[in-house]
Amino acid sequence: MTIKTLEDLFNHDLSDIYSAEKQIKRALPKLARAASDEQLVAAFRQHLEETEGQIERLDQLAESTEGVRIQRMKCHALEGLAEEAQEIIESVAAGPVRDAGLIGAAQKVEHYEIATYGTLHAMALKLGYQQAAQLLADTLAEEKATDKKLTAIATQ
Amino acid sequence: MTIKTLEDLFNHDLSDIYSAEKQIKRALPKLARAASDEQLVAAFRQHLEETEGQIERLDQLAESTEGVRIQRMKCHALEGLAEEAQEIIESVAAGPVRDAGLIGAAQKVEHYEIATYGTLHAMALKLGYQQAAQLLADTLAEEKATDKKLTAIATQ
Repeated sequence: MTIKTLEDLFNHDLSDIYSAEKQIKRALPKLARAASDEQLVAAFRQHLEETEGQIERLDQLAESTEGVRIQRMKCHALEGLAEEAQEIIESVAAGPVRDAGLIGAAQKVEHYEIATYGTLHAMALKLGYQQAAQLLADTLAEEKATDKKLTAIATQ
Repeated sequence: MTIKTLEDLFNHDLSDIYSAEKQIKRALPKLARAASDEQLVAAFRQHLEETEGQIERLDQLAESTEGVRIQRMKCHALEGLAEEAQEIIESVAAGPVRDAGLIGAAQKVEHYEIATYGTLHAMALKLGYQQAAQLLADTLAEEKATDKKLTAIATQ
């Protein structure tokens, strides 16, 4: 992908988070199966539904904004983050310690998304993509709420 | 690394962020050389100094806390994040668009650290590691301040 303008950078970051969301969608059922605490299992399942909605929102954004398109790419950061979650599953037996590890791994993913959607939202405003900015703000709010919910489960 | 107790998980996450900080220390001079905006160059240089202090703080924490030790491991998430920053440098010519991309990449790294130090801080409190919790809180505050500073530079 050649990046020359802020529009190109926006398309690049949008394609990156699209790949990230698809990877998260694949990882969440594994996290739900690996967790023991009922509230945590429910939180992972709920976030899977949200993630599906966020992917649709990205498609909607690309369709409704002139010049915006999602290209095929692989988000390498998410590959590393997913590997860390997998490492927790493999090295900790099911129970409260694994749950704590899964929450930590999931919060790293949430923060990856918070940083990325925050940047995309700021760029959308700068580029005058009003509707896109609103859609990105909606997802950003959901990611922050998920992060807070995971903290609440962890500190119980 | 076998993880059975919360102490083990703490040691695992501490070793992970130690590897991450070392990788960040190696990446920051590259980011500073690749940036054009003077304030951004200065921010990367200042964060390099902070990062060196944070590594020392982790060594101090491990020495002063009974049962805590840092083991050699590779933080895979940071490898992916560093790869994304490298991709920006390779695909965008020096100037304002590359700077915007570098800020985005750096904020993803900051958020990785915010999530990890947040989890470590909560675990330290739970484990009764008072001094460690204080050291972790100091670093967490620095990472949040760096993230805010990068947002301020980006929105100028």
